Amino acid sequence: MKILLIGATGTLGTAVHKELSARGHEILAVGRTGGDLRYDVTDPAQTAAMYECAGRVDAVVSTAGDVPFKPVTEMTPEDYLAAFQGKALSQIDLVRQGVTRIAERGSFTLITGVLAREPIPTGTAASMANGAVEAFVCAAAIEIAPQRINAVSPTVFTESLSYYGNYFPGMGSVDLADVAQVYVRSVEGAQTGQVYAL
Amino acid sequence: MKILLIGATGTLGTAVHKELSARGHEILAVGRTGGDLRYDVTDPAQTAAMYECAGRVDAVVSTAGDVPFKPVTEMTPEDYLAAFQGKALSQIDLVRQGVTRIAERGSFTLITGVLAREPIPTGTAASMANGAVEAFVCAAAIEIAPQRINAVSPTVFTESLSYYGNYFPGMGSVDLADVAQVYVRSVEGAQTGQVYAL
Repeated sequence: MKILLIGATGTLGTAVHKELSARGHEILAVGRTGGDLRYDVTDPAQTAAMYECAGRVDAVVSTAGDVPFKPVTEMTPEDYLAAFQGKALSQIDLVRQGVTRIAERGSFTLITGVLAREPIPTGTAASMANGAVEAFVCAAAIEIAPQRINAVSPTVFTESLSYYGNYFPGMGSVDLADVAQVYVRSVEGAQTGQVYAL
Repeated sequence: MKILLIGATGTLGTAVHKELSARGHEILAVGRTGGDLRYDVTDPAQTAAMYECAGRVDAVVSTAGDVPFKPVTEMTPEDYLAAFQGKALSQIDLVRQGVTRIAERGSFTLITGVLAREPIPTGTAASMANGAVEAFVCAAAIEIAPQRINAVSPTVFTESLSYYGNYFPGMGSVDLADVAQVYVRSVEGAQTGQVYAL
């Protein structure tokens, strides 16, 4: 398949790129500052330009999303808006614009995260954005068939424990290679409307 | 208790007002165009002014939220933003600003809806906004204790079936009086971080 991979140069994007490439897929790596195509998908105009440049693809895979972390009393409306635009609206727009552009039986695989269901202090904006994307995925699935859409919702990466481990006490971790396998499952499988929690 | 009721003149707000009043609570009814206090809580400045005017309250109860309904291919980024601001950010801001203003053991009860878990065509923005609020509620609960926060997530109201019934085939309905009881449960009970689905 020809796959558009958003956030390709990030920690997760690199792992997903490696796995999908190893399975013989042609990857168009998209990043804000690196990759084959340089676009910022928080800007709908750049998302349009990205699709224009990429041509027909079979799958859109997103591993990108930025949200602020602060106590709820220190958050501003702008922080929640930034979380919404940086992780939810950006990914929703990949779908909204992609539906008319990708293959008839193409798929979208978006990224959310464990904070949608297991909150941590300072994580209200992250939880909110993840919850928004997961509910959107379930709703979009019934409209875009036979195109498909799923979300990958991982806990902290084992490889990131040294940085973030203290924020996720006792919550376990998942290897990046295992998360990448779930992207394979979403892209090559037939399910839709799923939130793959791992 | 002294309760700030947002969306007090709406279909649900009227039912909640009636039930909470009958239980002896003092209700400050807030609406954009009706009620004791006239404020639009999609504007953070008006939310601040509302709290200023209301003084110390024991509970904040929201029954208000507007979202657009359209096929995903007809949605614009502005539609999703409107849904976010009209149902998610507006309610999140009630909490963000309310935490430092309401009673030490006060509570917030927000409104979401069945589309967070049971999507319908044209409902991607509604699902998204509901999912955002529900995940926020779970996350905020662990930060604001001993204050509490819950969401009420009803299916279509029995009283609204003649208008909206065709959008919810076979999904059942719930009487407004039963939804109002769940608000009582949230306000007078001790639970927090709950999404009451009914």
